[in-house]
Amino acid sequence: MNNHTELALNGVPICDTFAEAFTTVGTRIIVTALTESWVRIAAAEVTGYATSVIACDAEAGVEKFLSPAESPDGRPGVSLMFFAFGQSALEKAVTNRVGQCILTCPTTACYSGYTPEDPEKNIALGSQLRFFGDGFQVSKKWGDRRLWRVPVMDGEFVCEDQTGTFKGVAGGNLLICATDQKSGLLATEAAVSAMQQVELTILPFPGGIVRSGSKVGSRYSKLKASTNDAYCPTLQAQTTSDLPEGTGCVYEIVIDGAAFEPVQQAMKSGLHTVCQQPGILQITAGNYGGKLGKHHFHLKDLIDRP
Amino acid sequence: MNNHTELALNGVPICDTFAEAFTTVGTRIIVTALTESWVRIAAAEVTGYATSVIACDAEAGVEKFLSPAESPDGRPGVSLMFFAFGQSALEKAVTNRVGQCILTCPTTACYSGYTPEDPEKNIALGSQLRFFGDGFQVSKKWGDRRLWRVPVMDGEFVCEDQTGTFKGVAGGNLLICATDQKSGLLATEAAVSAMQQVELTILPFPGGIVRSGSKVGSRYSKLKASTNDAYCPTLQAQTTSDLPEGTGCVYEIVIDGAAFEPVQQAMKSGLHTVCQQPGILQITAGNYGGKLGKHHFHLKDLIDRP
Amino acid sequence: MNNHTELALNGVPICDTFAEAFTTVGTRIIVTALTESWVRIAAAEVTGYATSVIACDAEAGVEKFLSPAESPDGRPGVSLMFFAFGQSALEKAVTNRVGQCILTCPTTACYSGYTPEDPEKNIALGSQLRFFGDGFQVSKKWGDRRLWRVPVMDGEFVCEDQTGTFKGVAGGNLLICATDQKSGLLATEAAVSAMQQVELTILPFPGGIVRSGSKVGSRYSKLKASTNDAYCPTLQAQTTSDLPEGTGCVYEIVIDGAAFEPVQQAMKSGLHTVCQQPGILQITAGNYGGKLGKHHFHLKDLIDRP
Amino acid sequence: MNNHTELALNGVPICDTFAEAFTTVGTRIIVTALTESWVRIAAAEVTGYATSVIACDAEAGVEKFLSPAESPDGRPGVSLMFFAFGQSALEKAVTNRVGQCILTCPTTACYSGYTPEDPEKNIALGSQLRFFGDGFQVSKKWGDRRLWRVPVMDGEFVCEDQTGTFKGVAGGNLLICATDQKSGLLATEAAVSAMQQVELTILPFPGGIVRSGSKVGSRYSKLKASTNDAYCPTLQAQTTSDLPEGTGCVYEIVIDGAAFEPVQQAMKSGLHTVCQQPGILQITAGNYGGKLGKHHFHLKDLIDRP
Repeated sequence: MNNHTELALNGVPICDTFAEAFTTVGTRIIVTALTESWVRIAAAEVTGYATSVIACDAEAGVEKFLSPAESPDGRPGVSLMFFAFGQSALEKAVTNRVGQCILTCPTTACYSGYTPEDPEKNIALGSQLRFFGDGFQVSKKWGDRRLWRVPVMDGEFVCEDQTGTFKGVAGGNLLICATDQKSGLLATEAAVSAMQQVELTILPFPGGIVRSGSKVGSRYSKLKASTNDAYCPTLQAQTTSDLPEGTGCVYEIVIDGAAFEPVQQAMKSGLHTVCQQPGILQITAGNYGGKLGKHHFHLKDLIDRP
Repeated sequence: MNNHTELALNGVPICDTFAEAFTTVGTRIIVTALTESWVRIAAAEVTGYATSVIACDAEAGVEKFLSPAESPDGRPGVSLMFFAFGQSALEKAVTNRVGQCILTCPTTACYSGYTPEDPEKNIALGSQLRFFGDGFQVSKKWGDRRLWRVPVMDGEFVCEDQTGTFKGVAGGNLLICATDQKSGLLATEAAVSAMQQVELTILPFPGGIVRSGSKVGSRYSKLKASTNDAYCPTLQAQTTSDLPEGTGCVYEIVIDGAAFEPVQQAMKSGLHTVCQQPGILQITAGNYGGKLGKHHFHLKDLIDRP
Repeated sequence: MNNHTELALNGVPICDTFAEAFTTVGTRIIVTALTESWVRIAAAEVTGYATSVIACDAEAGVEKFLSPAESPDGRPGVSLMFFAFGQSALEKAVTNRVGQCILTCPTTACYSGYTPEDPEKNIALGSQLRFFGDGFQVSKKWGDRRLWRVPVMDGEFVCEDQTGTFKGVAGGNLLICATDQKSGLLATEAAVSAMQQVELTILPFPGGIVRSGSKVGSRYSKLKASTNDAYCPTLQAQTTSDLPEGTGCVYEIVIDGAAFEPVQQAMKSGLHTVCQQPGILQITAGNYGGKLGKHHFHLKDLIDRP
Repeated sequence: MNNHTELALNGVPICDTFAEAFTTVGTRIIVTALTESWVRIAAAEVTGYATSVIACDAEAGVEKFLSPAESPDGRPGVSLMFFAFGQSALEKAVTNRVGQCILTCPTTACYSGYTPEDPEKNIALGSQLRFFGDGFQVSKKWGDRRLWRVPVMDGEFVCEDQTGTFKGVAGGNLLICATDQKSGLLATEAAVSAMQQVELTILPFPGGIVRSGSKVGSRYSKLKASTNDAYCPTLQAQTTSDLPEGTGCVYEIVIDGAAFEPVQQAMKSGLHTVCQQPGILQITAGNYGGKLGKHHFHLKDLIDRP
């Protein structure tokens, strides 16, 4: 990474580098329930354990909560996004997650959040989960769309037949160098809170933040990734550090989105917010030299408003 | 199931039947973080998508939250329990979940919550995750125990070397028949809230409640379980129903625990609470005739207060 | 009230009547803090016990939460509105509330959320609270505005010198008749959730909802208002009821706002949302014949979108 | 205050001084509602704006939340405590608060949480609020106790006739000196979280913490209390400071309780927890030389476990 820091925002040096992100396959689904509280429970369960496709079946998160007026059935809802490497891997992850975490959850219904022009881009949702109904399930037209009504103990689970997929972008990121853990965490939380308002994006890590940045490879043959020692503040005396002097803590925010623009918009919003916070020494981004991922988000393009 | 209902509690008929539960392998871990808010984020992520071992890698949940005075490092914490069918399946699920959801999460540390007498009952925790440190990790004695300090971007991830496993009980349950969905849900939520206070147990489903009770088998050869039509209120005219007249909604609470007694105690607490609620028509429990699961929880044993 | 119900929305009868609201004096302040969690604590404390000016010193509530990017000092914040009958009553309530609940609260700062053209419309904020600094307080220019920095144990309490008042509207309302308490509550919660997104308005009652609607006068000479027996479902046999047949529960939503339009917009949003919910029998509104309050919100004007 | 610091706990110097607290009049009430969520809304509203009797009508807070199994009517509940200087001031505050914030709040009921032997120690609750029923209210025996059923729009508000008062203790306190605001706040939050588990006590300030410690008197004749400049870190160069070197932040925790012992127990629990946290330089307590308040809590008595 390039630490030439002639760039700056609100006095915070910005490295003239870029975040390198990958093309991925994504989908969006809408889950509704009787109350906001059950919407939140369902959303947490179905998007849990979905931080990184390196070792989870998908990357998932909340895009936004929906008021009754915004949701497909007049109940409180949530829009969720899921990403995986390939349409069939995504289908497997999403149907299993919805089957285990939404079908089971009191009062929920599940709708597609994206309809592609090409029906081949659809993946199964209700078309697979309906079999749980053991022949008692019923199909129902809903405009152009098709819902399944699957009998369950609290009534019926309404689930759309299919949901559409799109080519998404996974791995947009910001690396935030701070004087100490508490300042770094508060500043990064502030950025996360601003970024969560950008539509068509999710932050798949816990609370939106990663503290275990990794490099490719390790000294152990079986391990393909290991701690990014150049960004570990406690290793500054033991390794070649990329950290500016005085850094006590680094946090990363990873962004997945439906396209380049929303990911860039989220990075921009996060960058401008974090540079208003105290204790920030430098902002940079992670890349692999530019050869692995198709999407390059240059930090210098994010500095000007808007 | 047997619907002879001479048993009753607070006027609610209790079926003279039993919940049939299985022997399983469990573990308990303690996660701490800088703030309660981050403890909750970490707990939700690492126990997400873990409702049933039928299609998840583990069943997991929060046993209890710990105040700084109760936690191993003087910070806010949480005690989590995980269950799987077999020690190696459990090890794989727990190390992967901790690696993806706790190692990555700002400020967390991870400790064993159970130390067995027989060290062969231990599974890897830090002993495997330490390799992420790429040789920079450091071992540290902690009384009889061993911690790993793995350098990460916000400092060090402290993780105990191993955690112990025990023979647990999975699948304790109550089935709550109510007049309508709203009454049923509120009553079941009240029971859940009482049951969450019983130590050494978790409720693995979303918000502690299942609405998609299943029977073994289905008319589709590939599907081993399907909706329990005898408990679906909308199917009362189409199938042989086991529901008392007037039932509009049924919810199930599933309990996993470290032993028979705490699961029984949770069932007792839930039963007594739910029978105080309005709109409850009958309480029963799910079993497979008693031949599959080793543990039988007879509802009649739960009626008397200790 | 007039129960001619030729009006309807989504099949729900709408009474052809109006909500009668009063002219009042309002202000808006912005409170920021180190974390979102402390913003929420401060907001709950300072707007507590502020449901109705009949017996509280003010009506108060959260207008909206502010992300760090939207707040005056780059920290998480909240915009709060307060209403009272008269500028001096409002000044007394607001300065005392801020002194007891914000000055005392860790890490907070307090800014004006409205600047009137006429400086006579300002009320004291920091200009009075600064004296707590016992001479150690310092004034600071902030563009055209003036802040006070008052030394406290965790640093300094930053508080704007004054905040502006405006003529507001208090007492916009909707009355929601439902089949039963649970349906009525869920439907009204859905409406509240939609209405909370309308800027320049607050819902001063607990959770936005009133269940103790009142009429003017009572059979007890000392009591100026008493339960609106015509709207009490349990009294349908004992009094002249205004309730449609089958009503088991009525909830009211009261709205205060900075002007007629935002209150009307909130009522419109609530009306359209609640009429999508199950179990709703009729929507009406409360008035005093039109002679007491200056502002009349006719329900028939709210039916058409947008 | 006396800064002789030969006392220490976990390496943190403890001043050999005492907290001076006052005799006050307190009561306890139990509020229940249909759901935990409404219990929390009601509790926040009725205990808001109640930090200090210097300028609020009462000091109030949550003692503990009650599961359905622990509450008087099998619903989720909360136990609240209120304190004022004198029984009639307390009665006025509590009946007005319950009338404005609980009577109005969907689905709630209100019970006494303390029954004194001497009926003269009772204050009005339902006995006054019942008049809102305009003659339609009904009295109901409940064992030895008496409830009022007051018709409201969502059914009936059930409210106990009277609640008992006791001689309480107001103003137990700890003063926590930390290196900086973030460390101080986290450490104090940890102490609060431990102290909230002590029964028969409340922490009346926002989130349990005060940052605007005061001294008696000021240079302004009209102001009886002003910032405790000896404890303001920003004033160390301008005044005679009582702070240990390096102090960047001080927080106070104020405790009110039903008697000396629970307040002492809460102080003990808080002291032991806060001394486990990083960044703490000294613990002391506030007093007025011992002549004003009857209750003296010596820190040296709190150091030994248990």
